Amino acid sequence: MNEAVAPDVDPGDLLDRSRFPVDPWALTESRYSDADLGTTETLFAVANGYLGMRGNVEEGRDSYAHGTFINGFHETWPIQHAEEAYGFARIGQTIVNVPDAKVIRLYVDDEPLLLSVADLLEYERRLDFRTGEYTREILWRTPAGKRVRVRSSRMVSLTERHLAVMTFEVTMLDDAAPVAISSQILNRQDGEDEYHVAAKAMGEGVDPRKAERMNRRVLEPIINRGNAESHRVELGYRCVDSGMTLAVAADHVFTTTSAYESSVVTDDDLAKVVYRIEAEPGVPISLTKFVAYHTSRGVPPRELIDRCGRTLSRAVRGGIDRIRADQADWLDNFWACSDAELEGDDELQQALRWNLFQMAQASARAEGSGIPAKGVTGSGYGGHYFWDTEIYVLPFLTYTRPAAARAALRFRYQLLDAARRRARELSQCGALFPWRTINGEEASAYYAAGTAQYHINADIAYALSQYVAASGDRDFLIRVGVDILVETARMWADLGFWQDSEFHIHGVTGPDEYTTVVSDNLFTNVMARFNLAQAARVVQELADVDGPEYDALVARLELGDDEVAEWQRAADAMAIPFDDFLGVHPQDLHFLEREVWDLENTPLAKRPLLLHYHPLVIYRFQVLKQADVVLALFLQGELFTDEQKRADFEYYDPITTGDSTLSAVVQSIMAAEVGYSDLARRYFVNALFVDLADRHRNTADGVHVASAGGVWSALVYGFGGFRDHGGRFTFDPRLPADWSALTFRLTIEGTQVRVTVRQGEIEFVVEAGEKVDVEVRGVSVQATADGPVVIALADQGPRIPGDPQPVAGRRRADGSVIGAIVPGT
Amino acid sequence: MNEAVAPDVDPGDLLDRSRFPVDPWALTESRYSDADLGTTETLFAVANGYLGMRGNVEEGRDSYAHGTFINGFHETWPIQHAEEAYGFARIGQTIVNVPDAKVIRLYVDDEPLLLSVADLLEYERRLDFRTGEYTREILWRTPAGKRVRVRSSRMVSLTERHLAVMTFEVTMLDDAAPVAISSQILNRQDGEDEYHVAAKAMGEGVDPRKAERMNRRVLEPIINRGNAESHRVELGYRCVDSGMTLAVAADHVFTTTSAYESSVVTDDDLAKVVYRIEAEPGVPISLTKFVAYHTSRGVPPRELIDRCGRTLSRAVRGGIDRIRADQADWLDNFWACSDAELEGDDELQQALRWNLFQMAQASARAEGSGIPAKGVTGSGYGGHYFWDTEIYVLPFLTYTRPAAARAALRFRYQLLDAARRRARELSQCGALFPWRTINGEEASAYYAAGTAQYHINADIAYALSQYVAASGDRDFLIRVGVDILVETARMWADLGFWQDSEFHIHGVTGPDEYTTVVSDNLFTNVMARFNLAQAARVVQELADVDGPEYDALVARLELGDDEVAEWQRAADAMAIPFDDFLGVHPQDLHFLEREVWDLENTPLAKRPLLLHYHPLVIYRFQVLKQADVVLALFLQGELFTDEQKRADFEYYDPITTGDSTLSAVVQSIMAAEVGYSDLARRYFVNALFVDLADRHRNTADGVHVASAGGVWSALVYGFGGFRDHGGRFTFDPRLPADWSALTFRLTIEGTQVRVTVRQGEIEFVVEAGEKVDVEVRGVSVQATADGPVVIALADQGPRIPGDPQPVAGRRRADGSVIGAIVPGT
Repeated sequence: MNEAVAPDVDPGDLLDRSRFPVDPWALTESRYSDADLGTTETLFAVANGYLGMRGNVEEGRDSYAHGTFINGFHETWPIQHAEEAYGFARIGQTIVNVPDAKVIRLYVDDEPLLLSVADLLEYERRLDFRTGEYTREILWRTPAGKRVRVRSSRMVSLTERHLAVMTFEVTMLDDAAPVAISSQILNRQDGEDEYHVAAKAMGEGVDPRKAERMNRRVLEPIINRGNAESHRVELGYRCVDSGMTLAVAADHVFTTTSAYESSVVTDDDLAKVVYRIEAEPGVPISLTKFVAYHTSRGVPPRELIDRCGRTLSRAVRGGIDRIRADQADWLDNFWACSDAELEGDDELQQALRWNLFQMAQASARAEGSGIPAKGVTGSGYGGHYFWDTEIYVLPFLTYTRPAAARAALRFRYQLLDAARRRARELSQCGALFPWRTINGEEASAYYAAGTAQYHINADIAYALSQYVAASGDRDFLIRVGVDILVETARMWADLGFWQDSEFHIHGVTGPDEYTTVVSDNLFTNVMARFNLAQAARVVQELADVDGPEYDALVARLELGDDEVAEWQRAADAMAIPFDDFLGVHPQDLHFLEREVWDLENTPLAKRPLLLHYHPLVIYRFQVLKQADVVLALFLQGELFTDEQKRADFEYYDPITTGDSTLSAVVQSIMAAEVGYSDLARRYFVNALFVDLADRHRNTADGVHVASAGGVWSALVYGFGGFRDHGGRFTFDPRLPADWSALTFRLTIEGTQVRVTVRQGEIEFVVEAGEKVDVEVRGVSVQATADGPVVIALADQGPRIPGDPQPVAGRRRADGSVIGAIVPGT
Repeated sequence: MNEAVAPDVDPGDLLDRSRFPVDPWALTESRYSDADLGTTETLFAVANGYLGMRGNVEEGRDSYAHGTFINGFHETWPIQHAEEAYGFARIGQTIVNVPDAKVIRLYVDDEPLLLSVADLLEYERRLDFRTGEYTREILWRTPAGKRVRVRSSRMVSLTERHLAVMTFEVTMLDDAAPVAISSQILNRQDGEDEYHVAAKAMGEGVDPRKAERMNRRVLEPIINRGNAESHRVELGYRCVDSGMTLAVAADHVFTTTSAYESSVVTDDDLAKVVYRIEAEPGVPISLTKFVAYHTSRGVPPRELIDRCGRTLSRAVRGGIDRIRADQADWLDNFWACSDAELEGDDELQQALRWNLFQMAQASARAEGSGIPAKGVTGSGYGGHYFWDTEIYVLPFLTYTRPAAARAALRFRYQLLDAARRRARELSQCGALFPWRTINGEEASAYYAAGTAQYHINADIAYALSQYVAASGDRDFLIRVGVDILVETARMWADLGFWQDSEFHIHGVTGPDEYTTVVSDNLFTNVMARFNLAQAARVVQELADVDGPEYDALVARLELGDDEVAEWQRAADAMAIPFDDFLGVHPQDLHFLEREVWDLENTPLAKRPLLLHYHPLVIYRFQVLKQADVVLALFLQGELFTDEQKRADFEYYDPITTGDSTLSAVVQSIMAAEVGYSDLARRYFVNALFVDLADRHRNTADGVHVASAGGVWSALVYGFGGFRDHGGRFTFDPRLPADWSALTFRLTIEGTQVRVTVRQGEIEFVVEAGEKVDVEVRGVSVQATADGPVVIALADQGPRIPGDPQPVAGRRRADGSVIGAIVPGT
């Protein structure tokens, strides 16, 4: 039993429901608190995959971390290694906290509204999953005793990539008063002041998961302009080292029948429009603030300001109602394709929709960029792209928003040349994608848990193949995908070597970062096998046709005569370690020789392990940060028997800490498949609330986007029992006993099918398109637009009581008993 | 055959003999060159183990790196890891380049003497191994055509720890001229200007072996004073971060019969005395400069200046002749105890004496400090102490200067508390000595090749036991040594674990840094076994006596009842991997599973590998930076059969790059033992010339002290066939066929015996003390003061023709043939 990751708690206990009431279509907060500002700033962030604004209070303070982020907009810096070596990552890349356009300060009788000290007679804020708008309504009793109604809203457009819109409405309820509203764009110089607070909040320890902090000016001011007539303000910057450029501008529409005057002030780091109103009681004062951000690799800020102007003019012309309507339309469409429903459980339903909504916010307008580990909701992991995208986010996109999946894969293709260069640096052929990057250059400064994760190559090949199979987008495969497949396969063929008639891969790290630089990591080998075989298959198919596409491919990639055969040979002979006595797949060739870490008796105060033990200590043990073999069982499930899956799951589950949020969803899927139904449900609940209940104590740094995507996978692959191996779409459901129905949508080859799993049946309803061919437990099923298809289910798969037993206590081949210890005790 | 490390070159070709003529008692340079300034600055350095001055030209330029170093005088700084993790080294430590008192500038007719452009009619400089003085004599034709004789000398006292003395004598030969001599102490702010040149000289690449560079002021100026009457100047500093303090002062004795005047100037970074002379032809101008350095962990510089004053007053009072006499006496004594002679080969003899002289310069007055990897001749490796001291330097000291060995071991004892803390950080019991350090804190910023080298613990235990056995210093063992033995043994007992009735040690790195973080590294295991058994033996012996010493030990170390038995059990059951088919000991449990690096076909331009391949690439292969198993065969030789030694040597030799200078000497010793006589000689010659011929292209960073010590070991253990396992002193000589005689001295239990190996005999002559018991090829021999003992030798051990064959081409158990590749080709 894994107390830290799959505790047996009621979901209702995870959130304080007196503060966050249950609502299946919104996250609502009914009481202000500054005790967990970092978390709520993340939970209430609004974003569109390009532009993200944290849920900071309108007034600009207090905050854990002010944050406005633009996907891919980053500063670079030379990585200083404490001890240098050849080939170490050289170019640090960190997402920039861009000028903050969220700030709208309010003064009544010259007294500022400051939530942390204000006498709030009423308070509510809300992030609505259908309107895509963040709203706040408060009733403030000023120090002078005057009641003021303040309504505000904030939205990042899901249809206009560069646009955000805010409203701010103030009404004096009882008395007249001088009111001032200061609408600002404030360049906080990348939040220098805030990280101090953040660091204190984390305690004294180090945390490698946080973004680098710059100790210098990052944004060089180029332009600041304000127009006193139109109330438009504009700021333009250039990143000192990366040379990337940015412009931000705001237009203001102000209405009130009270008397007022306004002024505009701009300087290097501030642009503001200030309204001073002689507010009469009962007369609303209303401000609408249209904000546009444009960024570039190097276009002069002046030109970006022009682009902002066009965005703003169009927005103001259309008006806020039009923008709101577009936003709602976009989300209607999103939910129509992507919604998943848990019948009868509004608590889980709310959490589920919050996670799916994060998928929209992380990907809607990502377009030419990747999807950072935190989306654009925080600076955690420096705004970098990881394998998270391919393995945890892309399945959702592939099956609900294929165009977004395609865009994310195309982005990888843009980085192919950099990956080729990186392969050379690592003395390899083909291409080696960087472990973490924004601009394509490897930015992982710790190779053992970074560059050594060669599996990134296969993860990309896997997601690509999954997308092509699900979408039927052969054009993408021929024009883009095959180049990635070939170059990644070449890397594997060169990296591995032959011994004992097997193909081995040494000196790599698998997904589990608590064991590094090993031989024949199972996950890496099975995924490399897939990569090699897939490249061979695709190229062979083109060769068989022998048309101009093949000729172009051979010329473009200088394809050798025997390359395809070589990849296939390597794939066929890939070493897959297996321990006959224990009946399990070792995580790597020598994993089972290690001592076993006694997780059961490790105090929770020592978790996550990475913050309490030297890597050398952790690496010496059988202990996992995250699913590794178990992830292989999922992604390459057709290559393992049911018995193997159960044995492997039972072995690895008790030694998996789940210190990475990437773990719970995978453990949930495989727990469901092998029959640990209750454990699957608990893992799933934990994943649902990773951020909502701040389960990893770092939600403040941004949404765990991969976990949010994994929630969908856990639902669809885990409980829905969906699989897509080898271009087949199969179902073998695993609905928990106490769930009445689970519904989700899949778009397969252009047809959208709604799938509902109930205890006794599975139903397919084609919601858009013609038909789709699937299998349910070996039986072919065709769902068509003609009407629902219902297949009866005898059961929900095997049910194993309890949880897997600890590894310690088992016997080895020599009869000795496996022990377990907690290091340092 | 290992072309890079053991090439078949004539020693005479390694040095340009027209520039560096053969002289068995001195290194002489007869032609100035600025093409290899860095190398010659190192070769001509003068030092006493506390204070070291590089062989920079007196005039203060040109230089590769000005350098004056004081053992242990260091600055600290927080190590910034590019990616942080728990337990990573935190406190960087770097030896400080202290204010340069070597500078004596000369101007004739206001024209400066600058060797690089001067018209030098005569030039010679010389480092004399018997006088311990560096001298230079030049005849300069000034731009105005005047001939000037300039004689100078420089000496760091081997008897007065804090003292250096320089002389500078100028004579106008033909014409009168205004002459100015400016004697300076110049704080160059840690050579900021020079590293740029150094970096350029190295090319663009990174080199982890270089010292950290500070980008700030290190020495905060506290005092500067000059006395115009006495010509004494004084400077005092404090290190900004470490708080260490330093004072340097100089007294001047100036004589000439020409008219002159003088002035004294001091500021924060410069103190100088300037003499302006109306020089008459033929009249010598003579300056003697006495310099004292005192340092402390924190005593105010004012007090250190007082100490300098006392040092200087005593030196001036005694006069330079007295100092010179003391220096020569000290060296007479040194050579009497430490000299080794290679009959009839002055080229090798000169190189050998240069290496032994470096031992004197590295250790003479090290006293309370350790012995840095570069002594005090350069800033390479940051002035840190490594295992180099214990394994490569201490054997020489133990057998020729036991008091110096004792001091070095006592220094480790001073670091024991820090080692205890470090063990806790690594979740271990007992003590874990840092891989590299000055102040006792781990300073290795790359744990895979640093902290992971747990064997440092056993190396210290080994050297300690060796010293105690050779010296008979039981008092040291009881008061100091046993604490180290117990605490290191505790670490091993806790680090390892039981499996299959064997005691295993996982997650460590052996001496070879081209394979890291492995299981059951053979070297580590056999050395840990020694450490555990030795601790058990010593404690058991004390327990058997059951006196107050044992009671004190139990109380002091809180010794548990069953600890000794536990250490012995672990030692007895230590896992020693062996491959039955290949008949060799794998370097670690899984070493033989790796691919074999084809060194024979790796271009020399790609050497050393560490500067051309990513660590992940190197680690993936069977390829060694330095001897690992082969070092174990030497240090724990009684535990291996002759057959095993030969098989292991033949396997590892062809895959050992020797990219570390620690390798050649060990390969030489074991080549000699197993019978590769010619290879042994070639390795030895290579080691002899590591610095003299700049074989590793980084002599500029300082003397390879461990290699210099290893030269002695190669001679005594290798060709002399000396061994000291288990308190026995045995000889099984291996004199190369073309050597007529080899002589060396050993001090054993207070008796100094001269050993001479000739082709047909070995002779023992007691030079001091009573008697010594040794064995020659199994026969007990007692040498006494009564006269020489000569034992006939039938041969010089086995002789195997040629060199070991490459690993590739051998067959494995399954019949397959081992291949080899060069990565990236």
